[in-house]
Amino acid sequence: MGEFGLIARVTAKFSTTEDVILGPGDDAALVRARDRRVVATTDLLVEGRHFRRDWSSARDVGHKAVAQNFADVAAMGARPTALLIGLAAPPDLPVAWADAFTEGVGAECAIAGGAVVGGDIVRSDTLTVSITALGDLGGHRAIRRDGARPGDVVAVAGSLGLSAAGLCLLRAGLDGPQECLREHRRPRPPYAQGLKAARLGATAMLDVSDGLVQDLGHIARSSRVAIRLDSSALVPAPAIDEAVSLLAAAGEDRRDALGFLLTGGEDHALAATFPPDTRLPDAWTRIGVVASGAGVFVDGRTVPPHGWDHFE
Amino acid sequence: MGEFGLIARVTAKFSTTEDVILGPGDDAALVRARDRRVVATTDLLVEGRHFRRDWSSARDVGHKAVAQNFADVAAMGARPTALLIGLAAPPDLPVAWADAFTEGVGAECAIAGGAVVGGDIVRSDTLTVSITALGDLGGHRAIRRDGARPGDVVAVAGSLGLSAAGLCLLRAGLDGPQECLREHRRPRPPYAQGLKAARLGATAMLDVSDGLVQDLGHIARSSRVAIRLDSSALVPAPAIDEAVSLLAAAGEDRRDALGFLLTGGEDHALAATFPPDTRLPDAWTRIGVVASGAGVFVDGRTVPPHGWDHFE
Repeated sequence: MGEFGLIARVTAKFSTTEDVILGPGDDAALVRARDRRVVATTDLLVEGRHFRRDWSSARDVGHKAVAQNFADVAAMGARPTALLIGLAAPPDLPVAWADAFTEGVGAECAIAGGAVVGGDIVRSDTLTVSITALGDLGGHRAIRRDGARPGDVVAVAGSLGLSAAGLCLLRAGLDGPQECLREHRRPRPPYAQGLKAARLGATAMLDVSDGLVQDLGHIARSSRVAIRLDSSALVPAPAIDEAVSLLAAAGEDRRDALGFLLTGGEDHALAATFPPDTRLPDAWTRIGVVASGAGVFVDGRTVPPHGWDHFE
Repeated sequence: MGEFGLIARVTAKFSTTEDVILGPGDDAALVRARDRRVVATTDLLVEGRHFRRDWSSARDVGHKAVAQNFADVAAMGARPTALLIGLAAPPDLPVAWADAFTEGVGAECAIAGGAVVGGDIVRSDTLTVSITALGDLGGHRAIRRDGARPGDVVAVAGSLGLSAAGLCLLRAGLDGPQECLREHRRPRPPYAQGLKAARLGATAMLDVSDGLVQDLGHIARSSRVAIRLDSSALVPAPAIDEAVSLLAAAGEDRRDALGFLLTGGEDHALAATFPPDTRLPDAWTRIGVVASGAGVFVDGRTVPPHGWDHFE
């Protein structure tokens, strides 16, 4: 199947939304930007580095590529609107893989509320996915990383550590607990909480992609503050404790549940700071406070910027 | 150099514009969309398929990646505003290559009037560039491919055939004429003519990336019209005639100048249709007319959709 055939197959699958004025098929797409601004972010995913075809289905890869980008949009306090997708595919990539990947992309777009408006398909020896996501702030200010103030509350929405535990399990050749594997394959960013956090007055926000401590370090540095986490507020999901036991039984005994929560990325939870008197809805868990100073602390101990693993 | 170091080096080089509210460094960028709509397009470029490091400098590749995307923006009748760039780089890619590539990206952005607002750098065995370009229609309607009407004039702005001749010369191991090689390495889309064509009332427009006949075929099909080209209006640049002579002397005697003009893509000229009474400025050359029917004709002969080469 040539590029034009695949493009036609692929674009025929995507549904549209009210944000799309002109979808795929012309030189460029045309997307509504209702408040005269557009949020934009891009990522590249490379097989072997960001996903493995034996660990994730094509549909999983489609879901995850979209999720990680729309999570970035949500982390600005914006609503996902549109997606542009590039696929560099080896000549021997099964058409069924491309089809299932496309279905995953479309399904995650439907979950996040965005639409696929454009793309490109090319040949390459290395299976590579590029994603650009657009979003709409709905007239609100963007929630950046540099607005946290001493006294603010630190809170997270979404899951932490499940994806990292899932990756460890896959690396160890273990096939459960399913909740960890599922989160690694198809993270579920709490998209709607981005906009909600903005409306609640969040002072800084990001999505947890590299690990909670490392990512909060970005807020601490940008905002010139310290962040003090309380590990008792970081309660691992039961599946993480189960994963730690299974990993220990398999000889991977250096892993602990708190480590997964503090350093595991890719769940794409949202982490934000809020003014001290903010009434946080149930979706948000308070995990610490912003203080004057610098750095990220867990139970009063400093965590070096290169992360929890080295700290232990 | 790690990813963070390279990202810092790379983003430090880009200058900003009035369209940028928030540039690289946060979860996502924030770009002005003054008329409540944003034009968006994306491309993937893969080493060996879309560029060769021995034929094009890193700076050339940066220029060309940006040019082909902002040409798509211009072809909608829009003004380039912002660019997101992904670089998948092998571990042994010289830092000097990444630096020069980045300089090329920045320089072409300056030519087109856009700014780099975001990006991603990852490791990959295959050197790959992803580009997403955004643009602003300034309140005008988008010029699509489906608006050509019988009686309209067909015209082009920018060069045709030089890039294809340049590619042939490189393949034949010839190192001149420089004008052809230069256009292949750094195409110069007539960005400003996109907006100008929209203001002149263009009924359809695209950028010539796959070849004039093939691309006009998209307008013919989308608009359900025929396009009749007059080959006497397609005057090759002297460098193309020179290239044909050099290629013939090197044994490549199947090439003719008109073939390069009709099938050569990658100059990223703009091709558009205008109402019959439009006074075209000097930048535009009238090359044919729109008629009722279907297909693309040159001097009254049909050209099959797979192009001039097969037609000959």
